[in-house]
Amino acid sequence: MTDVVSMDKIVALCKRRGLIFPASEIYGGIANTYDYGHYGVLLKNNVVNAWWKAMIQERDDIVALDSAIIQHPRTWEASGHLAGFSDPLVQCLGKCKRRFREDHLREEAEARGEDPEKLVCPVCGGELTEPRPFNLMFETTIGPVREEGSTVYLRPETAQGIFLDFKTTLGFARKKPPFGIAQIGKSFRNEITPGNFIFRTLEFEQMEMEFFVAPDEADKWHRHWMEQRMEWYVTLGVDRDKLRLRPHGADELSHYSSATSDIEYLFPIGWSELEGIANRGDFDLRQHAEYSGQKLEYVDTATGDRYVPHVIEPAAGLGRTVLTLLCDAYDEDEIGGERRTVLRLLPRMAPVKAAVLPLVNKDGQPEKARAIYEELRSRMTAEYDAGGSIGKRYRRQDEIGTPWGITVDHQTMEDDTVTLRDRDTLEQVRVPVSELADELASRLG
Amino acid sequence: MTDVVSMDKIVALCKRRGLIFPASEIYGGIANTYDYGHYGVLLKNNVVNAWWKAMIQERDDIVALDSAIIQHPRTWEASGHLAGFSDPLVQCLGKCKRRFREDHLREEAEARGEDPEKLVCPVCGGELTEPRPFNLMFETTIGPVREEGSTVYLRPETAQGIFLDFKTTLGFARKKPPFGIAQIGKSFRNEITPGNFIFRTLEFEQMEMEFFVAPDEADKWHRHWMEQRMEWYVTLGVDRDKLRLRPHGADELSHYSSATSDIEYLFPIGWSELEGIANRGDFDLRQHAEYSGQKLEYVDTATGDRYVPHVIEPAAGLGRTVLTLLCDAYDEDEIGGERRTVLRLLPRMAPVKAAVLPLVNKDGQPEKARAIYEELRSRMTAEYDAGGSIGKRYRRQDEIGTPWGITVDHQTMEDDTVTLRDRDTLEQVRVPVSELADELASRLG
Repeated sequence: MTDVVSMDKIVALCKRRGLIFPASEIYGGIANTYDYGHYGVLLKNNVVNAWWKAMIQERDDIVALDSAIIQHPRTWEASGHLAGFSDPLVQCLGKCKRRFREDHLREEAEARGEDPEKLVCPVCGGELTEPRPFNLMFETTIGPVREEGSTVYLRPETAQGIFLDFKTTLGFARKKPPFGIAQIGKSFRNEITPGNFIFRTLEFEQMEMEFFVAPDEADKWHRHWMEQRMEWYVTLGVDRDKLRLRPHGADELSHYSSATSDIEYLFPIGWSELEGIANRGDFDLRQHAEYSGQKLEYVDTATGDRYVPHVIEPAAGLGRTVLTLLCDAYDEDEIGGERRTVLRLLPRMAPVKAAVLPLVNKDGQPEKARAIYEELRSRMTAEYDAGGSIGKRYRRQDEIGTPWGITVDHQTMEDDTVTLRDRDTLEQVRVPVSELADELASRLG
Repeated sequence: MTDVVSMDKIVALCKRRGLIFPASEIYGGIANTYDYGHYGVLLKNNVVNAWWKAMIQERDDIVALDSAIIQHPRTWEASGHLAGFSDPLVQCLGKCKRRFREDHLREEAEARGEDPEKLVCPVCGGELTEPRPFNLMFETTIGPVREEGSTVYLRPETAQGIFLDFKTTLGFARKKPPFGIAQIGKSFRNEITPGNFIFRTLEFEQMEMEFFVAPDEADKWHRHWMEQRMEWYVTLGVDRDKLRLRPHGADELSHYSSATSDIEYLFPIGWSELEGIANRGDFDLRQHAEYSGQKLEYVDTATGDRYVPHVIEPAAGLGRTVLTLLCDAYDEDEIGGERRTVLRLLPRMAPVKAAVLPLVNKDGQPEKARAIYEELRSRMTAEYDAGGSIGKRYRRQDEIGTPWGITVDHQTMEDDTVTLRDRDTLEQVRVPVSELADELASRLG
């Protein structure tokens, strides 16, 4: 069994160094909502850029999209979300009047060896109502009053925006199946009992791609994308042994999908979904065609072939990818008898690439270090740090995963070289200042 | 008077090439909401990256943040948005029952030389109600029912998330005033009569930075940021003659601001706000301190000095910056007697940097061109295009602002050089394939 870090340690590090912390904390917080601080944003942006690079820049069969969060409400009728995207809720008829997810109460009862058919309120023991479906979409109103027709929804997935724009995109993008449309953006789900740090949050960023293919090629492309997406996490530095592909059982499949496999990561909470790769078939395009009255199909002008493409969807969570990188990179070791926390992130994923440190705060070292820092930062994210002992400063950088420490010392003032310290090997080599930026850029790849 | 492009031409180009188009179009659209297509996303991402680079990477006095869209509702009581962020609405009491913004009706009456005190319904001539304030925040509900306490709002500005996290950030960021917190994210305003393409939309992305300073340094830093931000648009390639700084009159100032200046751009709709740079004083921190009961101040542990920092806020619109770049770069000229539409974007802002084109679709040229394209795309956004005459393909690239066209011709097959065509000068030079990527990277800067 591979060693797995505890969620407490990840949460504590994120809080201590301001990577990720509860939102609205000065007002007591807001359920399952988090803000990203400086290093968290830098890390998240690195994931975003890696995804765009792999999905858009380095392929010519996928185009980018950024569709709106609030779309026409018919979207969610057609997609099935308005009717079917819900959790079963029960309410206590006794003293406390609280609401619970019935499926969770049943699971808990079963775990305790009790009869899941005889549920009572876990707080006050009161009788419970029959379960009623509670839709997970956040509802709001466009215009001044809640009148019919102006009720709209915050999207619960970015995918539908892609289907809405399928025809428009086909019109300008000069692509034909197999081709994809990719986007990154926020989705919202009004979940009752989310939790586990940023694993499940009310608002969350998705990285979704819908790949449109000829119907008889769907299985082939489903396999292709399972392999591609699994490999992508490995290129981000994630331990292959903590990744696995798990096909959904028939009872787990969404109404739109004929086959789905999850890429799971061995999180502190156990094997859990990092990305779902679904074969959505032609469900969505057919539904939107029916609801809009538009023809959503591909017509090959050369052969006259026309068909409704089938869709393969790799749907990744940005927050979950960040959480994966944090869990996977987290390590503790010992240096000279002292415990050290270190994030062993790949250099290209690290929030800060290099920290420039004057050994002492005199003899021109701070000025020299600042000059080196200011030169470096035009090419990569760097930090200048002159506060505290050199060991303490190294440790601060180790903890946020900075791969390279550059120290200006007395020798620097004589021969214009610096020490370049590696976060993982702790090896220090001397590098001429004139070659430093190129050396780091080349290590960065 | 400088030449200004018409909005119609910008809208048409954006639609034709899929940069930006109405959202939910297959369902008839949704008011003032737009989706960004492939080239639009690439352009927008270039703006985002330029802003992060200028605000975060190349400074060490600003840290990044990404706060949630849905924050604790007390946030908006403290900020004043719940009570004061509203438009005055009137409703027709006659036949049509429509709603209008009273201030707009008054302006229109004045423009027609009529008495703005005697308004009637512009549609059916009916009597109008007294104006009532209509809050511009979108409201939604966390949890299963609309019960007291669970009403929350979609943020109308990203700024408040920064104020909520001021104390937390001060705790981990090891900064002291003057320092800033910056973020990019979506905000939402339920406006009744927005319009003018993407100039004003229901959901929009802001690039906001709150700069915390000692009270007696606020004016100095306000001037600093007005200059810095103006210069930033010039570095993006925007014509300096179409930018101006306009101080708000006393009647325009928001309740929180003692001084605000807008950076205005000469849009097709006339001089209009591109970015506001406000001196917010200590209003926000004092309000949140009062409402949360927390001390939101800076304490200098060395001197014992304590004060509530004043805040300078450069608040830019991402969509407006994209619109500015499009309007500013749009040009039409003539090549060999044929009209050409061209976006004269700076290379680093262009959605696509280089298009690789085989002159003819035979003699190994397509294969050679594809190999060059595949080599280039690992370093920059590139396209391969083999469809149609070479002139047509150049024109397609000119229209989206691609600075460099690389053509593989019969000579390429002999001496391994390509022609490198400049979008603006139309000059073509031959470059060895082996030097091409470095040549483009060096031109890109």
